[in-house]
Amino acid sequence: MSVTFPLGFTASGATAGIKPSGKPDLCLIARDAATDGGATGCAMVFTANAVTGAPVIVGKRRRAAVLSGALATPRAVLVNAGNSNAATGQQGVADAEACCAAAAALLACGSEGVVPSSTGVIGRALPVGKIIAALPGLAGSLARGESADAAAAAAIMTTDTVPKAARAEYRETAPGQTRTIRLGAIAKGSGMIAPRLDSAFAPPAASATMLAFVTTDAPIASVALQRAAEAACSGSFDRVNVDNHPSCSDTVIVLASGAAGGPPITLGTEAYDRFAKALRGVCEDLARQVIIDGEGATRIFRISIRGASSDDAARRMCAEVVSSPLVKCAIHGQDPNWGRIVTAAGNAGVWFDTAHASLTIGGVEVYRSGVPLGEALGDPRLKGAMAGKEVLLELVVGHGPGAWWMIGCDLSKDYVTINAEYTT
Amino acid sequence: MSVTFPLGFTASGATAGIKPSGKPDLCLIARDAATDGGATGCAMVFTANAVTGAPVIVGKRRRAAVLSGALATPRAVLVNAGNSNAATGQQGVADAEACCAAAAALLACGSEGVVPSSTGVIGRALPVGKIIAALPGLAGSLARGESADAAAAAAIMTTDTVPKAARAEYRETAPGQTRTIRLGAIAKGSGMIAPRLDSAFAPPAASATMLAFVTTDAPIASVALQRAAEAACSGSFDRVNVDNHPSCSDTVIVLASGAAGGPPITLGTEAYDRFAKALRGVCEDLARQVIIDGEGATRIFRISIRGASSDDAARRMCAEVVSSPLVKCAIHGQDPNWGRIVTAAGNAGVWFDTAHASLTIGGVEVYRSGVPLGEALGDPRLKGAMAGKEVLLELVVGHGPGAWWMIGCDLSKDYVTINAEYTT
Repeated sequence: MSVTFPLGFTASGATAGIKPSGKPDLCLIARDAATDGGATGCAMVFTANAVTGAPVIVGKRRRAAVLSGALATPRAVLVNAGNSNAATGQQGVADAEACCAAAAALLACGSEGVVPSSTGVIGRALPVGKIIAALPGLAGSLARGESADAAAAAAIMTTDTVPKAARAEYRETAPGQTRTIRLGAIAKGSGMIAPRLDSAFAPPAASATMLAFVTTDAPIASVALQRAAEAACSGSFDRVNVDNHPSCSDTVIVLASGAAGGPPITLGTEAYDRFAKALRGVCEDLARQVIIDGEGATRIFRISIRGASSDDAARRMCAEVVSSPLVKCAIHGQDPNWGRIVTAAGNAGVWFDTAHASLTIGGVEVYRSGVPLGEALGDPRLKGAMAGKEVLLELVVGHGPGAWWMIGCDLSKDYVTINAEYTT
Repeated sequence: MSVTFPLGFTASGATAGIKPSGKPDLCLIARDAATDGGATGCAMVFTANAVTGAPVIVGKRRRAAVLSGALATPRAVLVNAGNSNAATGQQGVADAEACCAAAAALLACGSEGVVPSSTGVIGRALPVGKIIAALPGLAGSLARGESADAAAAAAIMTTDTVPKAARAEYRETAPGQTRTIRLGAIAKGSGMIAPRLDSAFAPPAASATMLAFVTTDAPIASVALQRAAEAACSGSFDRVNVDNHPSCSDTVIVLASGAAGGPPITLGTEAYDRFAKALRGVCEDLARQVIIDGEGATRIFRISIRGASSDDAARRMCAEVVSSPLVKCAIHGQDPNWGRIVTAAGNAGVWFDTAHASLTIGGVEVYRSGVPLGEALGDPRLKGAMAGKEVLLELVVGHGPGAWWMIGCDLSKDYVTINAEYTT
């Protein structure tokens, strides 16, 4: 189970006819009406792209209203695949709201109680009629359990080769009480994946069409949940990069039902830290599934950089390494062409002294204090490391306190095939 | 003719055995000793990568000395292909200087009179013995004419499929005198091409292993020539992007012999503007040859953006469009997937209102004021535009004064083949 693993949620998937393939393309995740008025919460994190899909425009309005207390916690997320409803102007916003209103009527909540999310082709009008026609069946099949969760996860896929789901639970024992907090999640994402999600509180920190929907029965209000969600994204989705093209539709939505009971989880407490850690764990799990399923990917690689002047400097260097087509091709070809890795880091606009730079690949040092270790290229462990499903790159750039890591995937001919023929 | 088209220069190419293929790999371009003490000049522009090849380190020292007047105008450029002498530590710098000293002895100038330049595999010790052994033959074959120029251009190639050369000339008529100014150039570059060249005067403005060597018989001193060279690079090499991985070796060197005679060309004069325009023209010609020969490229595309808040904002948006693998794959597949173009521009960290955004492809408007023009997708002119050798993309992002353009190439399976198997 995934999104209905926590108490207080149902889910469903249906085929509205949006995808030309005729595969499932409409998903609904709903918090039980019975949890309304309890310790519910909703967090949303969106793409930092200047061009955003209509559902992101609508979602940001919902978020602002929720965080300011003007809007009660939304009841549901309505997701479609096959059409991103992006670059569709004011009509797109009206279309997204029309779908939300129709779903809300079926769920017996206000139309602002439904948050829209879309992924697929950009710049085509959303087939609102098809979606509204499919909604009664979708709402009617809302259920808990493996099969409902699987239907929901399948309906949000685009170029994904496998559905993506995760869950976690932990127990809390406090004087006089014990409770179990559950988290469940589904995600989609394979291409248009690069790290850059926004923040409701700060300028965009550090994404793709990557959609992730997380549910939890933790009792946590929206502001605290938003903080936890942004921290979780920074440690997960923002660290994977398939093709360095952040999407206009990237969305992470977390819904909390409060159904686990007990005292609300508030900022600055150990209970919050436990919850935030669990949420980050679920997001890391999903982010890893996304990068492994990166379009055309045959293997992934993890770049860890330390010794930088700041974490942000290390982050910028990691971003250059995971996005370099030359590094990605070398990983694909199992070629320990480490000069590409070091020079990619050098393109981050952050100066470092190569005299203090060293690189290991799969634990084999190939470059030390600015000098190549030629004999390493003959080390059989290096060949083995390059042939693995996950290649570990560790770059030291100096003696500073800054460190970061990111995960990328290789660039294969299949990536070109998939993306040269997507709309035609 | 190219580098020996201007008066006062000779060139040669030789095979030193650096390239495993056994192809020519050593090039010398020399200003005639007879022009020493005349109106000579030398300008150098290098990669802004934090990791720089040893020849770039040496070159920057030469440049600082030349611009401060501490060093006379260098006499020659010694270039090798097959080994970039990068990430090679202090030994690399010593190796580059040793080659310069050996060449200088043959040219009867001081060792600082030779500027080194290298391209090829990163992180391998330069085969100094092979280079020094080849130098007498290389210096002995210095000559003017088609065949010398062709030998020089061939010896600097790596993954280039064709040699690259350009030339220009213009006449100046002033009271009592007429003169002809000639420019000649050779370049190499096919992969590791992305715009980011430095400046001797300012922080890095806006590269690849892209090497370009320009000669001119204009009488112009180094400081004025450096200004003209940086402006020329900003309008040419900095506007082409094959794979968004600026090299650690990018180098543009301009040598002026003064042999055209007449009064020196100084900053702030019409003569300077004419020269700067001609230099930019030669660099534009070479940059275009580089992008057309981009690794695996089957077609190129030009993105022009206007209506931005500033030229720099437009430049940053152009850089996202030309580097997006999704845009490049769409261009490869002749797929008018314009949503990828608009969303790539949206990733530049520059906000714009899509309600004022419009896009044309090959003159066919596909997106106007934030609304898709669905009927455009059926326009036969659009299909024709996507099938051309150069696809023109014009994006308007608002009503601001900022504008820029850049040229990219498509991403093909051949790019992956070339770069997954480069060192192995």
